[in-house]
Amino acid sequence: MNEEQLQAVVDRSSFNRWLGMKVVSVGESNLTLRISWRDELISSPERQSIHGGVIAALVDCAADYVIAADVGHAVPTIDLHIDYHRIALPGDLEVEASITHLGSTLGVATAKVTDAQGKLVASGRGLYMTGARPLSPPPAAAN
Amino acid sequence: MNEEQLQAVVDRSSFNRWLGMKVVSVGESNLTLRISWRDELISSPERQSIHGGVIAALVDCAADYVIAADVGHAVPTIDLHIDYHRIALPGDLEVEASITHLGSTLGVATAKVTDAQGKLVASGRGLYMTGARPLSPPPAAAN
Amino acid sequence: MNEEQLQAVVDRSSFNRWLGMKVVSVGESNLTLRISWRDELISSPERQSIHGGVIAALVDCAADYVIAADVGHAVPTIDLHIDYHRIALPGDLEVEASITHLGSTLGVATAKVTDAQGKLVASGRGLYMTGARPLSPPPAAAN
Amino acid sequence: MNEEQLQAVVDRSSFNRWLGMKVVSVGESNLTLRISWRDELISSPERQSIHGGVIAALVDCAADYVIAADVGHAVPTIDLHIDYHRIALPGDLEVEASITHLGSTLGVATAKVTDAQGKLVASGRGLYMTGARPLSPPPAAAN
Repeated sequence: MNEEQLQAVVDRSSFNRWLGMKVVSVGESNLTLRISWRDELISSPERQSIHGGVIAALVDCAADYVIAADVGHAVPTIDLHIDYHRIALPGDLEVEASITHLGSTLGVATAKVTDAQGKLVASGRGLYMTGARPLSPPPAAAN
Repeated sequence: MNEEQLQAVVDRSSFNRWLGMKVVSVGESNLTLRISWRDELISSPERQSIHGGVIAALVDCAADYVIAADVGHAVPTIDLHIDYHRIALPGDLEVEASITHLGSTLGVATAKVTDAQGKLVASGRGLYMTGARPLSPPPAAAN
Repeated sequence: MNEEQLQAVVDRSSFNRWLGMKVVSVGESNLTLRISWRDELISSPERQSIHGGVIAALVDCAADYVIAADVGHAVPTIDLHIDYHRIALPGDLEVEASITHLGSTLGVATAKVTDAQGKLVASGRGLYMTGARPLSPPPAAAN
Repeated sequence: MNEEQLQAVVDRSSFNRWLGMKVVSVGESNLTLRISWRDELISSPERQSIHGGVIAALVDCAADYVIAADVGHAVPTIDLHIDYHRIALPGDLEVEASITHLGSTLGVATAKVTDAQGKLVASGRGLYMTGARPLSPPPAAAN
């Protein structure tokens, strides 16, 4: 999967589009995404800190897509762990993910979030369902 | 801290306002928040699933505010763990948090996210800096 | 599964036997295990603290067995998260686990470790493979 | 801190001595520990799997000591996350840890456990109190 193809996958999510998530690069078993810092992502107006949920979304997306790009289909998130190391300075945020372990049922990937100065803002890992079967049936109302 | 006071704290975050986060109730060492399901929160258009980052934001906010309400000041998130149990059906999402352990330096709170049918969608816990000192100095540009 | 039956399961593990793990009670979707504090479990001789790995073993066992007792077969651990709240005072340690979510493929249980004074020492959760299929094939030498 | 010095620190813990933990190498911001597989560490006699608590102890020790070696004093574990990727085949287990982020109050390190065939058995990360202050006062009865 190249950058353009992954961008199309990323853009299928309306939340990703709202975040303005851009695919920077896609490698063999790693990838990099980017978002631009903006006021709507802020948690504390004094500290100008990006909301923990936005950082979590970055880690989840990068870790999820690096596995999905490898297995060739969507991989639902099973669980997620995020360490918040420091406040991001205003500016673009990048997240780089790589695969830790890929099995036929489950896969783990790690991700690191850096700010515009290249400082490590957060790190984390996600566990994903790599088997074709979804975690649970989609809602009956879904098309 | 009552519901109205906590709502004012919640609304200081522009991301919380975008999520439409409402304080439902505040108890002694627990609280409940709510958001309304809407298209912009979706991850997969086929599955109509809420984005993992939005769920993470709910868990982080509820766990953070239940501790902040107790200690009386903002408590930065140190780390976060989320378990995703099932896809949320379209409808309001509620998150209820309670304090697990509150120390002079650190505190842990857990949170459970339920959908409009009362089904458990996700659960998680967060670790927060309860001491008055922030995790790291705010960016110079913030003052 | 009653206390005696679960004790037989617990005792199949040589590490559990070394820990001296005792089944205290088995409920509908919760259970309690106990170990006795002893010098060999210590991490720091000055602090007389129980080793983090021993606490992790307690959380893992209790969370694992509460799910295994429900589904009726062994459930391999997929991942584990432990929060260490305070040092355990010398004396027996108890761990109580309950099921958070039980699905056909995966299940999550939480556990709390208390010391002889009833103080919360640690809490955590584990994710377990509830399907009949093991995580990976057993080593060839095992058959 | 060199290998011999760290081995002296490792050996202060009676649980580490029971595990037979050996320091293999100490680098600038990484280190490697080793234990020998033996029957007493087993969880399931059929699968011959090492107990999850033993794997957790390896991750915790390696991540803890790599930070302690840097800051020059003991660093209590605050929380721990372990991913179990596959069953360890009988043989020595090695764990390699490296520092992810080191702050004045808190530090995070990651660790990977490999079996005698070099296969990745587990990975994890721990959060440690890097400030001089302990998490909580040692028990009064401690010498």
